[in-house]
Amino acid sequence: MANGRTAACLAVGSELLGEVRLDSNSLAITRALGRHGFQVVEKRVVGDDEQTVAAAIAELLGRVDVLILTGGLGPTADDITRDAIARALGRRIDVDPQVEGWVRAAYEARGRAMPEVSRRMAQVVHGARILPNRKGVAPGLLISTRDRLLVALPGVPWEMAEMLEREVEPELALRGGGARRFSRTLLLGGVYESAVEEQVRGLYDRFGRENVTILASCGVVRLVLSTGGEPASAQRRLTEMETAFREQLGADVAGVDVSSLEQAVLAELESAGMTLAVAESCTGGLLSARLTDVPGASAVFRGGVVSYSNQAKEDLVGVPHDVLIEHGAVSEPTARAMAAGACSAFTSDWGVGITGIAGPSGGTADKPVGLVHWAVAGPAGVVADHRVFGGDRASVRLWSAHLALDLVRRQLALGRRHG
Amino acid sequence: MANGRTAACLAVGSELLGEVRLDSNSLAITRALGRHGFQVVEKRVVGDDEQTVAAAIAELLGRVDVLILTGGLGPTADDITRDAIARALGRRIDVDPQVEGWVRAAYEARGRAMPEVSRRMAQVVHGARILPNRKGVAPGLLISTRDRLLVALPGVPWEMAEMLEREVEPELALRGGGARRFSRTLLLGGVYESAVEEQVRGLYDRFGRENVTILASCGVVRLVLSTGGEPASAQRRLTEMETAFREQLGADVAGVDVSSLEQAVLAELESAGMTLAVAESCTGGLLSARLTDVPGASAVFRGGVVSYSNQAKEDLVGVPHDVLIEHGAVSEPTARAMAAGACSAFTSDWGVGITGIAGPSGGTADKPVGLVHWAVAGPAGVVADHRVFGGDRASVRLWSAHLALDLVRRQLALGRRHG
Repeated sequence: MANGRTAACLAVGSELLGEVRLDSNSLAITRALGRHGFQVVEKRVVGDDEQTVAAAIAELLGRVDVLILTGGLGPTADDITRDAIARALGRRIDVDPQVEGWVRAAYEARGRAMPEVSRRMAQVVHGARILPNRKGVAPGLLISTRDRLLVALPGVPWEMAEMLEREVEPELALRGGGARRFSRTLLLGGVYESAVEEQVRGLYDRFGRENVTILASCGVVRLVLSTGGEPASAQRRLTEMETAFREQLGADVAGVDVSSLEQAVLAELESAGMTLAVAESCTGGLLSARLTDVPGASAVFRGGVVSYSNQAKEDLVGVPHDVLIEHGAVSEPTARAMAAGACSAFTSDWGVGITGIAGPSGGTADKPVGLVHWAVAGPAGVVADHRVFGGDRASVRLWSAHLALDLVRRQLALGRRHG
Repeated sequence: MANGRTAACLAVGSELLGEVRLDSNSLAITRALGRHGFQVVEKRVVGDDEQTVAAAIAELLGRVDVLILTGGLGPTADDITRDAIARALGRRIDVDPQVEGWVRAAYEARGRAMPEVSRRMAQVVHGARILPNRKGVAPGLLISTRDRLLVALPGVPWEMAEMLEREVEPELALRGGGARRFSRTLLLGGVYESAVEEQVRGLYDRFGRENVTILASCGVVRLVLSTGGEPASAQRRLTEMETAFREQLGADVAGVDVSSLEQAVLAELESAGMTLAVAESCTGGLLSARLTDVPGASAVFRGGVVSYSNQAKEDLVGVPHDVLIEHGAVSEPTARAMAAGACSAFTSDWGVGITGIAGPSGGTADKPVGLVHWAVAGPAGVVADHRVFGGDRASVRLWSAHLALDLVRRQLALGRRHG
């Protein structure tokens, strides 16, 4: 399956086996591994049990080049990752006085004395390199064994991320060697995966099916183009690929190497010197929340109104009473009035209005669950669209937020072409 | 580690090994398993490779009682779960004409003709029970082998959820037998995990440490109490546990068996016949989005303003210009004015105001990144609080939304006691 260098993620922690939490660290780790030509072929989550963790380490190290563990490095008796590594590799484990000094200093930097129990964090598996924790206390570990790399990082996401970038990526770069992979991701808005597949299929022979990955998520499709080789020639190859794929996909491409549709649209608006505001009903703030999740959104995003009641649609967004009475809250005229009202209320260049029935109840024969109207007001006027989405409440809301925002992007591009 | 009956989740799909998607189906599956006394001891994600999947199935079936697979049941050549199961169990696999009829009917119900490639979905591993898909097309499979249960469900979340409840839970109930576990979850708002641990530690001996699980997530802590036995006596035991833990935790308990703090607070407000509105700055719509993620939120939630600019704070929320000039946008007086302004703008009983610096940039010596002020306006006036949160932008935003909403709950409870 994987011909190149392989990797696996192993998350340690019983709390990740419950009904609430997922191992989200693996996403950032996968990204870092991918940059250096390592393909993740398996992810595992196991509980805080030394023997289970040790068995998983031994098994995975037998078949991947890089194994990255997260979690279980804290001070309590539940934190067994260090012991499990020692057991899996048959190595000694000792408290290292120098590391103990670092841990003590990390506590002191946070205005606390080191609790006695935290000496555990100064245990070092024989032969391991200690990775200092700049965002927290628990150090990480890095071990080379039989041409394999084993890394243990803290479970706290920002401690993990900092250590991954500073300590692990240079090591991956060294080991990846000539096998380094480069990738470029085209983010497409407002399209279905199947349609994208159809459009680009003709390019597979030219660039290799294995160098193209399509990922879809509620109205946003990511097309990951990748290649190996020398940095300069790889970038040339990626540019060639990008050009060929863009030719097929045209206006569907929202951005390159952006983390979200929101980031792409905010960047487009910022470079056009324009501002955005939204009025949301069924999405209930989801579009605003996603936009403001992007650092620096305030340069473009003026604000939003969540007009969950008709009264709010009238008072704060200026939807005419007659429109609500005649057409109903879920209708094209209301969506249009909301988009225009968002512009006025926030004195922005662009306004989005979204109104619909996210479900699970509230539908009628005329207006079924999943029906959503959205509209975009901009320099050239107001345009509207609608769809009946399948899926659950969360999915209807995310599709709606994505498609409405994508319409801003398309109108902006049209305006540029005509302007 | 696990003394009772064990289970594992195996998600199949190369798209789940990338940089974007997580296997979130495992959360609902873990919940269903837990209800019937099965403890998830491992989760795995593997790619669309028949041999890898078959090896994982064989290995996991060797050590857990129930193995639930998701994904890889679609019509394309990538969908190899059926073949992998047949290979792992050494069983035959055939297209079943009756199942083909069902698949064809599922397409027709969606107004489409069955593509030839979709005959794959009618392949049945010898001896498997076919699980019809009421929300989509791809059928699931259920196989009993050597006292083990193996289930394969579709990867699409709503198809998976419906099939899990209708087809798999009755089977789990049968197999769980006397080992059925019952649980009750106390959801606590506005507290740290370590403080909760401290408060309840004295009860561990009485009820058993293994029957109490603490899960924390940015200002919300879940305390899961569980027990086995006959339904009636188990419920009595849980009530006894709940009473004892509530005695320790007092007003920190926001709800029992609720899925989120938002759901708990909306339920409290609904039963009090009161309404809520919010004005958000640094959280940028996150609190509104979380509130409206709860079906039926519209009975309580009137709406919100995302006042990302000072202008919006003045125009739409009515924060006095002088307050913004004198104290700044991130200040207690601004938060108070936002909370009161939210009430006025939406004519609601309760109003929340949140303003802060979510980062990563924008901090000063006086007002560092992570500083957030929030306020709650209610029948008895306005109260405010603030904190400097650690962690990244997403974490600062979530902590802020949770703590501000939790303050509504506490003020509501205080009012009830005094009223």
